Amino acid sequence: MARPKLHDVAAHAGVSVTTVSRVLNNRGYLSDDVRTRVNTAISELGYRPDGIARSLIGRKSAIVGVIVPTVADPFFGELVSAIENRLAERGYKAMLCDCQENAAREADYLDLLQANRVDGIITSTHNRDVEGYGKAELPIVAVDRRIGAHIPIVRSDNRAGGRLATEHLLARGTRTPLLITATDHAGNDRAAAFREVVAARGLEPVVRAYGYATPFPQRRALIETWLAETGADGVFATDDLTALMVLEWAHKTGRAVPHDVRIIGYDGSAAVRLGMPGLTTVQQPIAQLGARAVELVVDRIEAEADDEAEVGADTAAEPPLPVELRLGWTT
Amino acid sequence: MARPKLHDVAAHAGVSVTTVSRVLNNRGYLSDDVRTRVNTAISELGYRPDGIARSLIGRKSAIVGVIVPTVADPFFGELVSAIENRLAERGYKAMLCDCQENAAREADYLDLLQANRVDGIITSTHNRDVEGYGKAELPIVAVDRRIGAHIPIVRSDNRAGGRLATEHLLARGTRTPLLITATDHAGNDRAAAFREVVAARGLEPVVRAYGYATPFPQRRALIETWLAETGADGVFATDDLTALMVLEWAHKTGRAVPHDVRIIGYDGSAAVRLGMPGLTTVQQPIAQLGARAVELVVDRIEAEADDEAEVGADTAAEPPLPVELRLGWTT
Repeated sequence: MARPKLHDVAAHAGVSVTTVSRVLNNRGYLSDDVRTRVNTAISELGYRPDGIARSLIGRKSAIVGVIVPTVADPFFGELVSAIENRLAERGYKAMLCDCQENAAREADYLDLLQANRVDGIITSTHNRDVEGYGKAELPIVAVDRRIGAHIPIVRSDNRAGGRLATEHLLARGTRTPLLITATDHAGNDRAAAFREVVAARGLEPVVRAYGYATPFPQRRALIETWLAETGADGVFATDDLTALMVLEWAHKTGRAVPHDVRIIGYDGSAAVRLGMPGLTTVQQPIAQLGARAVELVVDRIEAEADDEAEVGADTAAEPPLPVELRLGWTT
Repeated sequence: MARPKLHDVAAHAGVSVTTVSRVLNNRGYLSDDVRTRVNTAISELGYRPDGIARSLIGRKSAIVGVIVPTVADPFFGELVSAIENRLAERGYKAMLCDCQENAAREADYLDLLQANRVDGIITSTHNRDVEGYGKAELPIVAVDRRIGAHIPIVRSDNRAGGRLATEHLLARGTRTPLLITATDHAGNDRAAAFREVVAARGLEPVVRAYGYATPFPQRRALIETWLAETGADGVFATDDLTALMVLEWAHKTGRAVPHDVRIIGYDGSAAVRLGMPGLTTVQQPIAQLGARAVELVVDRIEAEADDEAEVGADTAAEPPLPVELRLGWTT
């Protein structure tokens, strides 16, 4: 017989799965008879909660809220998949909160997660000025996002990635490099690296930002306008989907890639690598980003549960994870 | 002042968000003093729980488990995003369960969801022979998956989609069509339609299946072998990522698309449309699939809560949602 599961215990004891869970958690009203039957079934079947099932026992909720813009984006889909996997290994579940680039919705979710007594939160949205994180009493970890002095940030090395991409474009012969990014703010390390490297070669760094909240059709129109007006012979897009839009524009307008225009992206999600392995890109360690965020948040949750001293005032200074150049035929 | 939120009520009353939630739910021990302070704050601020916050009040968990292979796949990412959005509109939250094509993990999750007393389950994996769905006492809805006689299935019109794709390939001049799909079982309506349409033209339907659980590098190797050995001049891939792999193979091997080989995919996720709008594909109504699954599962949850007669023995016969051909340059 396969490893017995909760529903086997329930069937053996003639009770519901919920009742078995209550016995395991010693929670709710239970008659002695029911308790005895469940414990007998557990011992007769040799049931031992392990893996995911550990989360049933003894924790407050064993749920971590995961706030992202949307899992429809392959980067965030892969990040959330990695987070969910590592959470499962540590006995936690993921409550998914897609915020759709909407700060009000993110604030609502933040309220909701706290009211539902999730044990912690991992957040990775682009919204700014979302109130509530500062007031939250829960362990919070941010992925590639600065939301408060005491909230640790897990990220990969955006400055090194920006340098790698820009140096590669220039090494291949690009004379008029263009950066296309989401928002051109002071914290955008990929843009900062692009500017540095391009200026150091005595070239003019041209940067265009489409804005995260810009719907896709308008975003595409903006990008095509910039490509036409700048006449760039090399494009660094700070995400792969934008790089693929540039590639499609080159196809539509009869430009040869990489001869007429070189294109490099950023992220290297499995979906893009699978569908378009020819795209040169900067590979983020997506699985490690997710796993590291889980380790930090779960360590904090369990340290609090153990009434230990607070962990990680210094974890806000997490060293960035390494990125690497992945060569395709687009450069 | 913006619409007051839970944490505003908590701050006004000088209590935690959890305490406000307890008052709203009338749950747990609360002193009269705390109860009065919270109710006063609610009335002074004019707080009214709506949208997402409705889920705090009066329901068992207001959580629906969402079981998919992985949100790292853009189709499932977009489906889950749509499910999560509609759940939020109806006052429910999504607990995400990535099963990674692993039947044992799916069975574990099924146990876990029941033990955690989620209110319902939406499932859309490819695993077969997962025990437990039959025994589950919860409302369950399947997306494009047959798991039991009484479990409603939400799906789009796979037979019509298979016909559209195949007829389009043939109309463009394909003489040696190849179907590449995940599993070639009797319930694969896209494959059935391909065989029907091709045979009706007196051509030989060639079908190859790579298997869902095959890791990507091996999958790519298999597909490239089939393309070389069949010499097909038209390929219908039953998902877009596979179609993009075929396109990449054509690029690598110097075949002109569509001149030497025509390529049509299936799904039309936003990520693929954005990154590769030139791919001809069959567009599934992904948002509607997600929304309809939520309507069915929430209607069942709320009918049970109201002690109404059981809904939807006939919903298992949900009519399939329409698909449409999206023309690109690959055919």
